[in-house]
Amino acid sequence: MLIDSTYPKSFASDNHAGVHPDILDAIAAANHGDAPAYGDDSWTATFEGKIKEVFGPGAEGFAVLNGAGANMVGLALMLGRYDAIVCADSAHIATHEAGAAERLLGVKLMTVPTEHGKLHPDDIRARVGGIGNPHESQPTVVSISQATELGTCYSPDEIAALAEAAHSAGLRLHMDGARLANAAAYFDCDLKTITTDAGVDVFSFGGTKNGALAAEAVVVSDPSLTDAVPFLRRQSLQLASKMRFISAQLSALLTDDLWRRNAAHANQMAARLADGIADIAGVSLAQPVQSNAVFATLPPAVAKTLLRRYLFHHWDESAGVVRWMTAFDTAPEHVDDFLDDLRKAAASA
Amino acid sequence: MLIDSTYPKSFASDNHAGVHPDILDAIAAANHGDAPAYGDDSWTATFEGKIKEVFGPGAEGFAVLNGAGANMVGLALMLGRYDAIVCADSAHIATHEAGAAERLLGVKLMTVPTEHGKLHPDDIRARVGGIGNPHESQPTVVSISQATELGTCYSPDEIAALAEAAHSAGLRLHMDGARLANAAAYFDCDLKTITTDAGVDVFSFGGTKNGALAAEAVVVSDPSLTDAVPFLRRQSLQLASKMRFISAQLSALLTDDLWRRNAAHANQMAARLADGIADIAGVSLAQPVQSNAVFATLPPAVAKTLLRRYLFHHWDESAGVVRWMTAFDTAPEHVDDFLDDLRKAAASA
Amino acid sequence: MLIDSTYPKSFASDNHAGVHPDILDAIAAANHGDAPAYGDDSWTATFEGKIKEVFGPGAEGFAVLNGAGANMVGLALMLGRYDAIVCADSAHIATHEAGAAERLLGVKLMTVPTEHGKLHPDDIRARVGGIGNPHESQPTVVSISQATELGTCYSPDEIAALAEAAHSAGLRLHMDGARLANAAAYFDCDLKTITTDAGVDVFSFGGTKNGALAAEAVVVSDPSLTDAVPFLRRQSLQLASKMRFISAQLSALLTDDLWRRNAAHANQMAARLADGIADIAGVSLAQPVQSNAVFATLPPAVAKTLLRRYLFHHWDESAGVVRWMTAFDTAPEHVDDFLDDLRKAAASA
Amino acid sequence: MLIDSTYPKSFASDNHAGVHPDILDAIAAANHGDAPAYGDDSWTATFEGKIKEVFGPGAEGFAVLNGAGANMVGLALMLGRYDAIVCADSAHIATHEAGAAERLLGVKLMTVPTEHGKLHPDDIRARVGGIGNPHESQPTVVSISQATELGTCYSPDEIAALAEAAHSAGLRLHMDGARLANAAAYFDCDLKTITTDAGVDVFSFGGTKNGALAAEAVVVSDPSLTDAVPFLRRQSLQLASKMRFISAQLSALLTDDLWRRNAAHANQMAARLADGIADIAGVSLAQPVQSNAVFATLPPAVAKTLLRRYLFHHWDESAGVVRWMTAFDTAPEHVDDFLDDLRKAAASA
Repeated sequence: MLIDSTYPKSFASDNHAGVHPDILDAIAAANHGDAPAYGDDSWTATFEGKIKEVFGPGAEGFAVLNGAGANMVGLALMLGRYDAIVCADSAHIATHEAGAAERLLGVKLMTVPTEHGKLHPDDIRARVGGIGNPHESQPTVVSISQATELGTCYSPDEIAALAEAAHSAGLRLHMDGARLANAAAYFDCDLKTITTDAGVDVFSFGGTKNGALAAEAVVVSDPSLTDAVPFLRRQSLQLASKMRFISAQLSALLTDDLWRRNAAHANQMAARLADGIADIAGVSLAQPVQSNAVFATLPPAVAKTLLRRYLFHHWDESAGVVRWMTAFDTAPEHVDDFLDDLRKAAASA
Repeated sequence: MLIDSTYPKSFASDNHAGVHPDILDAIAAANHGDAPAYGDDSWTATFEGKIKEVFGPGAEGFAVLNGAGANMVGLALMLGRYDAIVCADSAHIATHEAGAAERLLGVKLMTVPTEHGKLHPDDIRARVGGIGNPHESQPTVVSISQATELGTCYSPDEIAALAEAAHSAGLRLHMDGARLANAAAYFDCDLKTITTDAGVDVFSFGGTKNGALAAEAVVVSDPSLTDAVPFLRRQSLQLASKMRFISAQLSALLTDDLWRRNAAHANQMAARLADGIADIAGVSLAQPVQSNAVFATLPPAVAKTLLRRYLFHHWDESAGVVRWMTAFDTAPEHVDDFLDDLRKAAASA
Repeated sequence: MLIDSTYPKSFASDNHAGVHPDILDAIAAANHGDAPAYGDDSWTATFEGKIKEVFGPGAEGFAVLNGAGANMVGLALMLGRYDAIVCADSAHIATHEAGAAERLLGVKLMTVPTEHGKLHPDDIRARVGGIGNPHESQPTVVSISQATELGTCYSPDEIAALAEAAHSAGLRLHMDGARLANAAAYFDCDLKTITTDAGVDVFSFGGTKNGALAAEAVVVSDPSLTDAVPFLRRQSLQLASKMRFISAQLSALLTDDLWRRNAAHANQMAARLADGIADIAGVSLAQPVQSNAVFATLPPAVAKTLLRRYLFHHWDESAGVVRWMTAFDTAPEHVDDFLDDLRKAAASA
Repeated sequence: MLIDSTYPKSFASDNHAGVHPDILDAIAAANHGDAPAYGDDSWTATFEGKIKEVFGPGAEGFAVLNGAGANMVGLALMLGRYDAIVCADSAHIATHEAGAAERLLGVKLMTVPTEHGKLHPDDIRARVGGIGNPHESQPTVVSISQATELGTCYSPDEIAALAEAAHSAGLRLHMDGARLANAAAYFDCDLKTITTDAGVDVFSFGGTKNGALAAEAVVVSDPSLTDAVPFLRRQSLQLASKMRFISAQLSALLTDDLWRRNAAHANQMAARLADGIADIAGVSLAQPVQSNAVFATLPPAVAKTLLRRYLFHHWDESAGVVRWMTAFDTAPEHVDDFLDDLRKAAASA
C-alpha cells in the first residue's frame, strides 16, 4: 500500500518512514567507481573509525543488514551449545524474530515478566541457580533492549547495575540497540555512556528505525569476541557484498550527530503526543513516554474510529492498549492533526 | 580501499561494481512519504506483479537481502530434518557461504565432482541409492547454479533433463540464480525459459551482481511451497523492514529489460576479453566463456605482474588458473587496456 | 555412590531403583544367538505387536533409549522450522532436558504458568493469536506430561478436552508419558483410554522409571507421521544397534500388565506416605498426590535432619517444598521407617 | 527376525551378536539396591577409574549409549558454529549417522577420498587453505575411524603423524573408536598407545560391537574440554538415568582385558576367513584384513547363492564387493562352514 499524499502520517512504526535525505545522499556519493566487496573498502574503514570515535577505541563495529540480524550475530558471539539468554518476556528476540534465537542460535530464552519492559539485577540473580547442573540450559547472556519494546529507557546507572549483576555471576551483557539513539537522546548523553562505559559487552546500534534505508551495526566491546564476527556475519546471511552502501549509511548517521538529531526529534514528537492526550477524557498513558513510542489506553470505539484514518497497532487489544510511534520525519502538525482527530473520536464515543 | 579514478577497473568480481543509475533513481523515487513496513507496500506489490509477468502467473516472488539469503530461504522450503542436497562440489552453497547450509538448514551436501561446474542427470541417479535407508541423509533437493561458479551455463534442455531426473526420483530442483540474468542473456532467451518452463521448483533471481545495491528474489514455482516463505524469510534474517527500497531495485531491473541489458553487456565484455587472449602465448582459457567470467591459465609470473595493477582472484593457484569477472559497467576500453597489460606481461615473462 | 544395604531406600527418584527381575530375565532371554541389528529382529516385532494390542491397531511403537530421546523424536515428527510448543512451565522438556528442544528441534517453548503442573484448554486458546504472523513462532504442538512433573494426572476427559482445543486450533497433542503407567494406574484405566482414545497424536510410554534398565517407546497414533520416525530416531542418537535388548524390556513391561503392577505399587507407596504425614504437625502436602510423587512443605530444619539419612530433592527451597518419589520396589516398611524418622525430626524441630 | 538355531552365524555385522556372558553378569550384579541416577554411583566411579588406568591419568571417560552418540558428544566438544571436520569420505559420521553431524553439530564435513579408508597427513594440509576466510567453513577437527570402515587400522606412528599434522595447523584430532579394541588387538598394543599416547584429543571406546549390550565411552585427553561433556551428553540424549548399568558393561570390558580377548578373537576369525578364500577362484580380498572385517570381491552369482543362506551386506554392488564381519562369538566352525559353502557356490558359478 502506498500511503499517498492524501493519507496522513503513519503512527504505526518508525519503519514506515522513508530514508533521511542525508543518508540517501551518502548512498549516492558512495556510488563512485569500483570498490572491493564485503567490507574491504574505504567507506567501511571510515565507518569503523567512527565507531571507535563514538564508542571508544576498544569498540569494534561491524555493519549488518537488519536488527534481527544484528541481534543474532551479536548474541552468537557469546553463546555455546547449551546456553540460555535471560531477557524480558517482551524482548524483540523473544516475541518478534520468528524464533530465530531458538533456531539459529539453538538456545533457550529465559523470559522474565517485567514492569515497563525493563530487567532488574534481581531478575538475573534469580535465574542463575541452575548453573553447573547438566540437566539445565546454562544462563550465559543477559539481553536488554534500549529503548525497550515498551518505549522506556535504561539509565546509565541501571545498565551499570545490570552489567555488574551479570558479570559477577559469570554472564555477559547484550543490548538490542535498535533504538539506542532514542535512549541517548532521552538522557541527553553520549552513546558510549549507556553502552561501553556502562559495561555492555556486545550491542547493536540501530540505523534503520532512525532514518537509514537498511543498516545496523554490531558493536563489540570485548576484544576477545571480535575474531568470530566475520564468520558469524557471513554465515548468518548478514554480510552485504556491496558493503560500502551499508557503511555509508551508518557513517552518515554518525556524522554531525545526525543520529541524535533524528532521534531527539522523534522523541519530542512522542512527548508532544503524550502531552496532548493528558486532557482527553478516557485516554491515558499505559507506559512512561521516554523515547519515540506512546502506549495509550483508550476505549475500543475510539481506537476503531481512529484506525479508519490512521495506521497504528493494537498492543494489547483486550486491555485497550495501543502503540503510537513517531519518526525522524513526524512533523508537529502530524501530531496536532492526530490529536484533533483523537479528541473528536473520544468526544463522540 | 577506495579504487579511485587512477585505479583501473576491477576484474575481481561483479560485486566490485557500484549501482546502476536507473536502480539508484528507483531507490530515490521510492523515498516518498510513508509506506507500510515488511512488504505491505505498493512498490512490493509492483515487484510481485513483475515476477509473475516475467516468470509466469504461477510464480511467486519474495524479495530478500543477499544471494546466500536467497539460497537459504529457497532451499529451506524443500528440506526436512534428515535431508540432503545434491550439488556440484564447486557450488557456492558448498564452498562460499560459510557453512550456512549445514548450520542454518542442518542438512548434508552431497557434492559431486563436475566438468565445468555442471551437474548431469546421471549424477542425480547415482546418488539416490540410499533413499529409504534410515542411516543415510535423504537426498531431497538438487541444486544447480546458473551461471555456474565456473562461468558456464545450463541450456534450457539441460535444465529440463535435470528437472526430469530429479522429479522422477522424488527430488525437487533448485537453482542458485545469482547470475541467472547472464545465463538468459547468453542463450538470448526469456528468464522463464530457463527456470519455470524448464521445471525448476524454486530459484533465486540475482540483482546485486547485475547492478543492484542489495536485492535478490526468491521465486517459487510450486504453489504448495509459498506459504512458508514469509516465516522462513523472517527467521532467516532476510526480511527488510523498509522493504519498498528492496522491491524498487528489483522492479527497476525487471523494467524495460534492464536485467538483460546489464547482463548482456557484461557477457560481451567477458567475450571480448576471451577473444583477446586467444593470440597471447602462454595464456589460455580454462573454462568455456558463457557468462561474465573468464577463467584463464597463465604463468605465475604473468599473474603476479598483472596483480600489481589489477584486482582479480587466483582460482586454483597451483594450477595457475585465475578468474576475471566483468560487470554491467565494464567498458570496452577497460578490457582493451587490461589485454594490453596482459600482453606486455606475457611477453616479458 | 553405592547405596549399600545399610543405607535406607532412596526417595529421590524412581530412577534410583534398579531393574525389575522380570525385565532382567527378559534381557537375558533375548541373549540367544544372533539377531539382525537396528530393530529387524523378532523381539522388536513382538514389542511392536504388543503396542498395537495395548494402544490400538492404529498405533505404531518405536523403541528408544531414554525419556528425553522419546520426547525429542516424538516432537520432531510434528514440528517445522519456525514452530513452537505450548507446554507447562514445569514441563520436563522446558526445564530438565538441557535445552534439547531448543537446540535439537530449534523451536520455541511457549511456557504456561499452571496450577499443579496441568495445562487447561484455555491456555491453548490464549496462545494461538500469533498464528499466521511471520514475525512470531507458530504454535504447532501442545505438549503435556502424564503424570505431570508435580505428580498430578490428567483425567481422560481432561485430555480429550485438550485434544479438542488443540486440534480445533490446528495444533497436535503430544504427551510426555515418562510416567504414563502411573497415571493409568491412578485412574485404574487402560493405557489407551488416556492416550490414543483421548486424541493424543504422539506420546511416549516410559519404561525406565517403571522398572526397566533403559527403554522407552515413542507411540504414534497418526499414521501420516510414522514414516519419519526411523530417520529421526537414527539422527537423534536414539537407535540401539542391538535393539532386541531394548524391545525385550518393553515387551516384558507389556506382558501380564507388569507395567500396571509396578506403577500401582509405586502409587500405593506414595499414597501411604501422603497418608502418613497427615497428622505430622508442620508438614503438609504441596500438591495432590495422584502418582508416585509426594510434594510436601516442611520446615527447613526438618528437611535438613532427614537429608542426613535419606536421599531426596528440594523442589522449591525458598518455599520449603521437597519432593519424595516412590518406585516399584519401595516397600511399605521403607515408607513407614521414613515416616518414623520424619515424625521424630518434626517433633524435635 | 530371530536367527534361530537352524540359521547359521551372521556375517553381516558385529552388531548381530548378542552380549558376552561376563557383561550380562556385570549388569545383573549392578542390579543391587538403589543407586543415584545419572552417574553419581559407585559403578560409574569404578568405570571412570578404569579409564584412567587404561588411557592414562589425564584421560576422563564418560559413558554414553551408542556409537553415533559418542561421536556427536565427542566432536561437539571441539566445534564451534562455523567449523568443519576433515574426515574420510567413508567415515561413519559422513555416511551412516543420518546426517547427525550436519544437524546436531551444524558443521561441514570435508570428506576426503582415501585408499583403504585412511586419512594421510597431506589430506589435512591440503584442506586448511581456507582458514581465516570468513566465506568458508573453518576446519577445526580431523576425525579418523579406528578401525576404519574398510577394516584397516592406523598404526601408532600413522596416528602420531596425523596428530602432528592436525595440531601444527591448529586442528584437533578425534577418533571414532567404535572398533578401537580391534585395532589394539591387531597391533597387539595397549589402548593408550594408539590414542592418548599418539596425540588423539578426544575419542570413543566402543563396547557394543565388542560384546556389550549398549555402552560406549567418550574419552577426553585434553582437560580443557571435559567441563562441557556432562551438558553436551545430556542435551545430546546420551545420558542414561540408570547409568550404573552402562558403566558396569564398560568396566566388565576393561576388566582382565575382556575387550582384547573379544576383539582378538573376532580378528582371528576374520583372518581365518581371509586365509580361506585365498585359494578360491574368482574370490579375492578387496581390502587388507586388519580387524574383524573382510571385504571381498566375488561374482554376483556367488554372492547371490550365499545370501540365500547367510546374512551379510553388499558393500559396492556394482563392483561386486561384499563385507563379511566376525564377532567375539564367531566360532572357527562358523567360518569353516561358511568357507565350504563359498567354495561350493564359487565352483558351481
